[in-house]
Amino acid sequence: MNFDLTILGSGSALPTSRRYSTAHALKVYERFFLIDCGEGTQLQLRKAKIKLSRINHIFISHAHGDHVFGLFGLLSTMNLLGRTAVLNIHGGPDVQKILNFYFDQFSEGMQYKVVVNIINNRSFNLLHSDKNLEVYSFPLKHRVPAWGFLFNEKEKDANIVKEVITKYKLSIKNIVSIKRGNDFITDTGERIPNAQLTVPAMPPRSFAFCSDTAYYERIIKWVEGVDLLYHEATFANADRKIAKQTDHSTAQQAASIAKKAGVKKLLIGHFSNRYSDLDLLLREAREVFPETYLAEDLETHTI
Amino acid sequence: MNFDLTILGSGSALPTSRRYSTAHALKVYERFFLIDCGEGTQLQLRKAKIKLSRINHIFISHAHGDHVFGLFGLLSTMNLLGRTAVLNIHGGPDVQKILNFYFDQFSEGMQYKVVVNIINNRSFNLLHSDKNLEVYSFPLKHRVPAWGFLFNEKEKDANIVKEVITKYKLSIKNIVSIKRGNDFITDTGERIPNAQLTVPAMPPRSFAFCSDTAYYERIIKWVEGVDLLYHEATFANADRKIAKQTDHSTAQQAASIAKKAGVKKLLIGHFSNRYSDLDLLLREAREVFPETYLAEDLETHTI
Repeated sequence: MNFDLTILGSGSALPTSRRYSTAHALKVYERFFLIDCGEGTQLQLRKAKIKLSRINHIFISHAHGDHVFGLFGLLSTMNLLGRTAVLNIHGGPDVQKILNFYFDQFSEGMQYKVVVNIINNRSFNLLHSDKNLEVYSFPLKHRVPAWGFLFNEKEKDANIVKEVITKYKLSIKNIVSIKRGNDFITDTGERIPNAQLTVPAMPPRSFAFCSDTAYYERIIKWVEGVDLLYHEATFANADRKIAKQTDHSTAQQAASIAKKAGVKKLLIGHFSNRYSDLDLLLREAREVFPETYLAEDLETHTI
Repeated sequence: MNFDLTILGSGSALPTSRRYSTAHALKVYERFFLIDCGEGTQLQLRKAKIKLSRINHIFISHAHGDHVFGLFGLLSTMNLLGRTAVLNIHGGPDVQKILNFYFDQFSEGMQYKVVVNIINNRSFNLLHSDKNLEVYSFPLKHRVPAWGFLFNEKEKDANIVKEVITKYKLSIKNIVSIKRGNDFITDTGERIPNAQLTVPAMPPRSFAFCSDTAYYERIIKWVEGVDLLYHEATFANADRKIAKQTDHSTAQQAASIAKKAGVKKLLIGHFSNRYSDLDLLLREAREVFPETYLAEDLETHTI
């Protein structure tokens, strides 16, 4: 089952032809969860061959232009493509203002409903739950209210060993019970331990998104142990004063969060366009956390 | 002296990876005049190597998303690049609403001034004049108020023949007078006719932009004889009913306007994405007006 992250935009406020503004698409099974929506996101989704009809949830980290300017075109295109399914957009109060502007000016003939889920909570907060996934928001530290997101796959029932189904002539009721962890009692009263009947399900996977944010240790407990952490790394060490002034992070600070949170892998992005060579940022991060990688537009990371 | 049109977006409401939404850049001498600003215009300007600092005027035909959604990112990027020069934006009353939203939500720290020139006039109307150029608006026929634009190069003074300057020992005052069309009287009282002293300047060049619009014969007189006419051609002949319903044009209707207006060359664009093969539209237009060409993103047409 898919649990893949596709980077649609790894740039920061000044998009380039190689790095669009922030947008990520997380594929969970056959659905895509869009995180942020910088200008040109719909074009990047097209290049990544991601169907807009597979997106039912958009999570907006904060209301700076490079994270939201693609919403207008995306919402319009969804309508032109005949969407009727509800679209859920999660974000802070400013996102409501942005959407109100869109609805006022551009929603003539709109055939689908947008449900806006306003995040006001400045702690760890469940935003969405379905049979496969839970999504939480948590506060970041930025010049405007900003949120990170944690995507936790739900634990799956154990998988039953195929051979035992025929061996013990298991009914569907038996199978459901065994998958839930119960032992099986045969007609002759023999107790077969659950461990002999099943193999454990894949451990649940997790992804956390933290952008835009200053170095903020409060994040650590919320992203602890995730399989993949995306953390912004706008600046190199030499520019850490600018990072602090603008409430952004250095690559090394991102790595420090990753290390302290014990995550498996760190992806850095939201690079300032002042760096022609990002190897510097990568090296600085890897000094602290070796399992660091640079985000690149249209690359997919299997989690 | 340059008078070149670069197509930044030749698509219609549904942008594709090959055709962005509408935006054109007209280079007049060393300045660029931007016409419409669909999503991703700043990215296309970057690909076309057009510096944002060379743009002082933006003309918006109408307030549909595929003609304006790139304004937000463009205005933000201009600020991030340190712009201080005034930016002039010309468009209908809805453009003011769109810009007000931008100023309210996204203009924190903005270092340059935007002057909005609201077009209310539903006839032929001078929008801008400088030493090289006059720009006029005129009404189109669309579902919302929409305007076309005419860019007329100003007539230049005749060029003086170099040899006569030394032959007659002309002063700067003499030269200015001759360039304005006067004859020259020598010290001995001989009258030298202007035609012997000068060669005519290049004839002034002109470009007209008409999108989005239904077939609208009122346009003809305003675009009469232009060197290059861009006219939208959203649909093929077979879909002319849809064209009428949606206040768009067919390629053949665009060609008919071009023919009746006696323009030199017609460029068609704003193609519906339903046509995989645009040769059909080109053929249909050329039946009426042979000097028709298809607009392609990032191509430049010297006028």
